[in-house]
Amino acid sequence: MLKRVLIANRGEIALRIIRSCKELGIETVAVYSNADRESLHVAFADEAICIGPHQAGDSYLNIKNIISAAEIADVDGIHPGYGFLAENADFARICEDCGFKFIGPKSEHIELMGNKAKAKETMKEFGVPVVPGSEGAVDDPDEALKIAKEIGFPVIIKASAGGGGKGMRVAHNEMSFLNQFEMAKIESEKAFGSGDVYIEKFIESPRHIEIQVFGDSFGNVVHFYERECSIQRRHQKLIEEAPSPFLTERMRQKMGEISVEAVRKLGYENAGTIEYIVDKSGNFYFMEMNTRIQVEHPITEMITGIDLVKLQLLVASEKEIPFKQEDIEIRGHAIECRINAEDPETFMPSPGTINAYYTPGGFGVRVDSAAYQECTVLPYYDSMIAKLIVHGKDRDEAIAKMKVALNEFIIEGVKTTIPLHKRIMEHHKFMEGDVSTDFLEKYFK
Amino acid sequence: MLKRVLIANRGEIALRIIRSCKELGIETVAVYSNADRESLHVAFADEAICIGPHQAGDSYLNIKNIISAAEIADVDGIHPGYGFLAENADFARICEDCGFKFIGPKSEHIELMGNKAKAKETMKEFGVPVVPGSEGAVDDPDEALKIAKEIGFPVIIKASAGGGGKGMRVAHNEMSFLNQFEMAKIESEKAFGSGDVYIEKFIESPRHIEIQVFGDSFGNVVHFYERECSIQRRHQKLIEEAPSPFLTERMRQKMGEISVEAVRKLGYENAGTIEYIVDKSGNFYFMEMNTRIQVEHPITEMITGIDLVKLQLLVASEKEIPFKQEDIEIRGHAIECRINAEDPETFMPSPGTINAYYTPGGFGVRVDSAAYQECTVLPYYDSMIAKLIVHGKDRDEAIAKMKVALNEFIIEGVKTTIPLHKRIMEHHKFMEGDVSTDFLEKYFK
Repeated sequence: MLKRVLIANRGEIALRIIRSCKELGIETVAVYSNADRESLHVAFADEAICIGPHQAGDSYLNIKNIISAAEIADVDGIHPGYGFLAENADFARICEDCGFKFIGPKSEHIELMGNKAKAKETMKEFGVPVVPGSEGAVDDPDEALKIAKEIGFPVIIKASAGGGGKGMRVAHNEMSFLNQFEMAKIESEKAFGSGDVYIEKFIESPRHIEIQVFGDSFGNVVHFYERECSIQRRHQKLIEEAPSPFLTERMRQKMGEISVEAVRKLGYENAGTIEYIVDKSGNFYFMEMNTRIQVEHPITEMITGIDLVKLQLLVASEKEIPFKQEDIEIRGHAIECRINAEDPETFMPSPGTINAYYTPGGFGVRVDSAAYQECTVLPYYDSMIAKLIVHGKDRDEAIAKMKVALNEFIIEGVKTTIPLHKRIMEHHKFMEGDVSTDFLEKYFK
Repeated sequence: MLKRVLIANRGEIALRIIRSCKELGIETVAVYSNADRESLHVAFADEAICIGPHQAGDSYLNIKNIISAAEIADVDGIHPGYGFLAENADFARICEDCGFKFIGPKSEHIELMGNKAKAKETMKEFGVPVVPGSEGAVDDPDEALKIAKEIGFPVIIKASAGGGGKGMRVAHNEMSFLNQFEMAKIESEKAFGSGDVYIEKFIESPRHIEIQVFGDSFGNVVHFYERECSIQRRHQKLIEEAPSPFLTERMRQKMGEISVEAVRKLGYENAGTIEYIVDKSGNFYFMEMNTRIQVEHPITEMITGIDLVKLQLLVASEKEIPFKQEDIEIRGHAIECRINAEDPETFMPSPGTINAYYTPGGFGVRVDSAAYQECTVLPYYDSMIAKLIVHGKDRDEAIAKMKVALNEFIIEGVKTTIPLHKRIMEHHKFMEGDVSTDFLEKYFK
């Protein structure tokens, strides 16, 4: 087993990883920026090393400093968490080259899945349904328009290197296409340093449903069923649940099997998530594969009883996945609300000092957070301050539990998304499980 | 279903009950003493009524004021929690007479089980093994000595009206017997207003294992397996776990069946716990029956996935238990540590203001508490400020998780039992599951 792990991240996910390491008897080394001295991941790790000033580029994204810290602290593994360097293939490669086990997939798979067009091509080859679209990136506007007409409007133009909604544009007809195409290229260039974009059929009011997969170095691959992540704001997930209220047992099995088969063919190791776009008829199409632990992994843990971060550490230690597909069962229903320090109407970040903080507790309530009373929510990093996760015997119980927990959650000093979550939990469309990625735009404008 | 419930309690159990009521859509009415104005049960209930000054006798034990509050608030049910009036048969009777559903068993069963000698007699009749001892109370010292000699030393002298270790004395031989007998009578008189005592065979280094039972008004009775509560300080439970590391599957079934059978014959309704003393050979003897929800009920919830307080509310609403015995399965292992505001060495209460409070979180960690940063732990009531509960796939994982959680738990301003819990979790005898009610006396003197 790994003996000493550096966690190249901050906030709740750093704390989450520290917890699983400690349970397994693995020593933990935190890294932190100057601004994060008072953070809990620093307080709870066995050792903590400052890696630079508050700007992420100089600290949490500073590969050189992180590798130096790993050398100084004499660790044998590095866990990247999510965000920051988690999907940076160079970082994974450098870790391995320097003799540190990167707790995640091989760098080649990160690289492959990081290129959205290539990822789609590969998945299509492996039998995964993909949205009809251009074969790879398209540069010429006329060529692009021709393809768009072939696919049929509406179409969506996406950054090849993209993610998080940046460089994404929808064109509803020929008239607007060229304009949107150019805008997408400019945004993509700005956000990712590459103007490569591709074109796809735009699925209206789709669901976002993803399959959690896991591979080990012995070729075993399992899936942990799906997560429904349709409630989003600006293409960022806000509420996730498992299982999906939409999938039939047959669809669930099919999506799981197709995902496992692709991952097996890929020779993929460690945790991954295949994200699908699902239309109203239940057709599902590959969207992208995330080659890391996801923010929303706790809901899968709640319904399966399996600790996914521990499994990451196990698999990274060259152990076999200690169970078979048929041992993984769904029990009950879990929901996660992302509590962000944001204005719940405008989604503008709301950094500041939390001067009152009370987390809900009790049966079936889980809080993953690095916040505490009197801590400061920094403006430099992600605005998520807590994940509130509930587990009930069924969806109705989970919703009821979430409402109670949201009402108990006290955070003063910064604005949060709690009021919005409360409104969503009360919304009849949400209660009926009738959700789609444009849910907020449709009902909360 | 009940529509509006008054919770005749305070602290974490009041909050616990409020949560389940809210999930079921039942309105909640809190009652509070003058000293509890700032309490969370007051803040989180739909309505709150002051029932008197800080002295429990004038507030939480003041039946008249509580009934008045119930009338004013127009509730249809009263939940007593544990402690205070939970096992006061008069209170249960008065509730019913005034038209409020008492959320618990019938008053006759509270009364019967409140008389330890009669309870034992009844249980023996119903086929439950009991510790050899006197038939009911013994008054005459000579008669008592004769009985003690028949049973064989060591014997234990116990207050008939007792509980919590008061009025309990062990005599190891004839020499000391009469002295201990008199002391027990005096203590019993002082603590319970009655000098009635009875005599039993003293089981050395026993385990305390209890069975959670539940009956409804349709005659259905189920059990929820056992809780091992052997780690005690001064006859007060400190750490509980489920399942017991000692019971074989056969013993588990047998204890469950015998308990269910007795409860069925009793015609008992709602939650109850049959406490057994278990010797090294696995013989188990009825100790007492608690006619209420127990402090340690969460560990049973964690391993069975069933909300026991919701079930109490359901059964009190004249509904049937919505599952069968065979539907209740044990999954994983749960441990609860009672975090008391006490000196961890002397167990002297340590009231005061909590000036830093951080509760652990994450997968499989549950905190039931009404404490918060800047709250005051009052000297007037029970010193328990939080229950830290963990759930793992097996006992080893649960212990590992508890260690991590205890290390994260920050409570400043009052002394707590956290350091003691940490030491116990590290103790090889505990790790082996080799525990008994004298564990602390043996290893932590």
